[in-house]
Amino acid sequence: MKAFNDLADFSAEEIRALIDLASRLDTHPEPDALKGKVLSLLFLSPSLRTLASFQAAMVRLGGGSFVISPDMSIHGIETRPGIVMDGAAAEHIREAIPVIASYGDAIGIRAFAERKNIAADMAEKEFSSLIELVDKPYINMESAMNHPCQSLADWKTMDDFSVPANAGKFVLSWAYHPRALPLAVPAATLHMAAMRGMDVTVLRPEGFELPPQLMQKAAAAAEASGGSVTETDQRSQAVEGAHIIYAKSWSSTRHYGDKLADQKLREQYLDWCVDNTWFETSQDDCRFMHCLPVRRGVVVADEILDGPRSIVIPEARNRMLAQMAVLHQMLGKK
Amino acid sequence: MKAFNDLADFSAEEIRALIDLASRLDTHPEPDALKGKVLSLLFLSPSLRTLASFQAAMVRLGGGSFVISPDMSIHGIETRPGIVMDGAAAEHIREAIPVIASYGDAIGIRAFAERKNIAADMAEKEFSSLIELVDKPYINMESAMNHPCQSLADWKTMDDFSVPANAGKFVLSWAYHPRALPLAVPAATLHMAAMRGMDVTVLRPEGFELPPQLMQKAAAAAEASGGSVTETDQRSQAVEGAHIIYAKSWSSTRHYGDKLADQKLREQYLDWCVDNTWFETSQDDCRFMHCLPVRRGVVVADEILDGPRSIVIPEARNRMLAQMAVLHQMLGKK
Amino acid sequence: MKAFNDLADFSAEEIRALIDLASRLDTHPEPDALKGKVLSLLFLSPSLRTLASFQAAMVRLGGGSFVISPDMSIHGIETRPGIVMDGAAAEHIREAIPVIASYGDAIGIRAFAERKNIAADMAEKEFSSLIELVDKPYINMESAMNHPCQSLADWKTMDDFSVPANAGKFVLSWAYHPRALPLAVPAATLHMAAMRGMDVTVLRPEGFELPPQLMQKAAAAAEASGGSVTETDQRSQAVEGAHIIYAKSWSSTRHYGDKLADQKLREQYLDWCVDNTWFETSQDDCRFMHCLPVRRGVVVADEILDGPRSIVIPEARNRMLAQMAVLHQMLGKK
Repeated sequence: MKAFNDLADFSAEEIRALIDLASRLDTHPEPDALKGKVLSLLFLSPSLRTLASFQAAMVRLGGGSFVISPDMSIHGIETRPGIVMDGAAAEHIREAIPVIASYGDAIGIRAFAERKNIAADMAEKEFSSLIELVDKPYINMESAMNHPCQSLADWKTMDDFSVPANAGKFVLSWAYHPRALPLAVPAATLHMAAMRGMDVTVLRPEGFELPPQLMQKAAAAAEASGGSVTETDQRSQAVEGAHIIYAKSWSSTRHYGDKLADQKLREQYLDWCVDNTWFETSQDDCRFMHCLPVRRGVVVADEILDGPRSIVIPEARNRMLAQMAVLHQMLGKK
Repeated sequence: MKAFNDLADFSAEEIRALIDLASRLDTHPEPDALKGKVLSLLFLSPSLRTLASFQAAMVRLGGGSFVISPDMSIHGIETRPGIVMDGAAAEHIREAIPVIASYGDAIGIRAFAERKNIAADMAEKEFSSLIELVDKPYINMESAMNHPCQSLADWKTMDDFSVPANAGKFVLSWAYHPRALPLAVPAATLHMAAMRGMDVTVLRPEGFELPPQLMQKAAAAAEASGGSVTETDQRSQAVEGAHIIYAKSWSSTRHYGDKLADQKLREQYLDWCVDNTWFETSQDDCRFMHCLPVRRGVVVADEILDGPRSIVIPEARNRMLAQMAVLHQMLGKK
Repeated sequence: MKAFNDLADFSAEEIRALIDLASRLDTHPEPDALKGKVLSLLFLSPSLRTLASFQAAMVRLGGGSFVISPDMSIHGIETRPGIVMDGAAAEHIREAIPVIASYGDAIGIRAFAERKNIAADMAEKEFSSLIELVDKPYINMESAMNHPCQSLADWKTMDDFSVPANAGKFVLSWAYHPRALPLAVPAATLHMAAMRGMDVTVLRPEGFELPPQLMQKAAAAAEASGGSVTETDQRSQAVEGAHIIYAKSWSSTRHYGDKLADQKLREQYLDWCVDNTWFETSQDDCRFMHCLPVRRGVVVADEILDGPRSIVIPEARNRMLAQMAVLHQMLGKK
């Protein structure tokens, strides 16, 4: 495995094999598998789960990692190409990335993008420009429009809780949040659930439609897997019979990059906070998922997070196991 | 061992066995003992020795660790229960702790508490509320009223320097410091020395009495061990015949949580700085101990820290060895 | 090996043996060599490459490390001797260093010095005062006037690219930079190239002469190795026939410690930015080296950094390998 960048780069069988490996590494540790191997971790955007789970994953496999973020460099890292560096930044990303990569056997990179131009972000312009500088196996630790480690963990979590794949109903619901957040998790989640063969409904207010390319990509995955993909703003219809309600806030796509317009629009939907009423017509054992961090009382009510429907903690733990499987495949002996 | 939270949870024999193990691991390294094991380290309060010594301890035993502090999360971690999270913090401690714990085989947590209400702090309300969220073995890396790793290291340090247990005279002395500091170290030290069988004198100005519950707990330990516990503001009497002078500053208990009143009171005792005059009637080989960090010329004179009485550096090194013993017991093969 | 502080402490044969070991560890990993060993890393000055490469080096050899920088301590670390610590700093370097060292099998220290007094810096007053507090093997991770890890990596890099030793022409050139930077890298580089047997030319504007002691030390090394050392401000003469152009900015030695005078002088030399014109009379395969971080368009043109002459990335990677060799010698089984 040369890259773990997008679940769509793998067949469903390959994903299932990774999940099997993740489960096996949980019950049958391999503390010598990556002995002496190094994972470079570059965080151009902040992190808690990803930071902790990758470090833990490497230790469990017998290797190690180091963490670099721009504030560790002298006066930050310049990213603009062709610039005369007479300002604050003393280092350019064109040196920083190859050097950091050169110390590892693989590199994980997190870079959210600035969310100014949706076409550029859909094309992963920023992340691609970083990856171009790497000649090692790499892992997408969240880019503008992807978060494959989260999706692999989410797939495994549904398997762990025996959520049906074909005929399973998966609701990806927008939720209110005071800030305009990236599309990476909804984009990756939509595709993952479709690829798993589920009937996926994207529930969101008008103005928060997911980009058509994402819907088309997911529809193609659903066609191959026997699932389906639809989009609606009608909550009562969306949640009926749901096996999973997966909440996540994201930017308005109508006002992408326009913070004020986005905020004005989102504030009309302060009541999009998942609580018990969302589960009245769902499956009895419908579960609540979220990638975390999550704002209590804003995105989701305490009664859900603290109740039996929530599987957000095992979901977060599966980040580590999923990443162990990826690292094992990427860096282990063949 | 499911928890290392308080020396009082162990018998003196168990403590001595841990110290023996710490000494053995120093001379007979076991670099495979915790192969592939992970310690989660959560610092809600700042640290240098604890941060370094736990990381080093895990490496020496063949495992590893990762460090999380709130400033690594997006806009900090909310700790208030039941709150609507529409402010800065994007993550709640109710998710953060279980997730961080889920990546490790054990978790160490440091949380000093805010020192507003002495009854709440004596009851370890804050630390307990964090530990409730953990379903793994855990280590108290300093709470409102405890610091068991420091105490285990201190006990071992006295053993290393052949300080007598029964009939050994231990002076725990308040010292001036410009800020109101936690009671964790004095509380833990008092109990440790009493449990070790020593004759313990708490030397402090009026207004800095240790809480009666701490004195009673230590007195019970002393009764079991053959030691004794007294409290005084008379320095000359306290230090006479002392084997150990252990200095530490702490908050006024009379004005607990009232910074201005505390400061006004403590500034009457600027001369409580340990220097050679404190040792005029002590044992000839009386040693000086302090948990560090220590303010030179304020808490203790350079002549002491740089002289032969000071054992603060081996005392700090014993933090690592003591913690290795705890981790070995907690996570090693049975 | 008790210290790795200065290439001048070793014979050329010993340096070559270290480089051979570095190459061997690259092709024949030894992931058990330093099992359970700990490297303490103390950064009193900022870092990216050194931070990452030492952590990676220890993992590759089966050990581990921990990182301490002053901002991790409560309110920073006091360094002034004999001071009454009633200000912000709660810890003194006289405790911090021995404690940090006590948790490791060796310690790496980075401390640039304040660059106020050139005689004090030439005498390594600050670094020596820190090392005095250490009773373990130590590594100089960059002091006022040395950077031996960089030099060992640079030597290896020239070997890797078959740059001739005797009769090889090495140009160490000053370059413009908006800030007055340390002399550590030019000092170490000058000596390294002379010790390798090369004909070394220091190219710099007037006012940026390297201190005579550095030139004399390098001349002595050149005499022993069959190389030579000269200094000039004439670029066309300096670069003629060069095998290596090694760019680096440094403080004015005429105005050492006087920021305003330094800045006024350096701003006369804004055109000292290495571009293709510098290579018109060099060897055809003349290479460009720099220790990084480097300011694009200021110190060196993009056309050089992005072209075939630049070997700055393999040079940076060799930091890790060189340090692995040092650590292997310092901490490995004999």
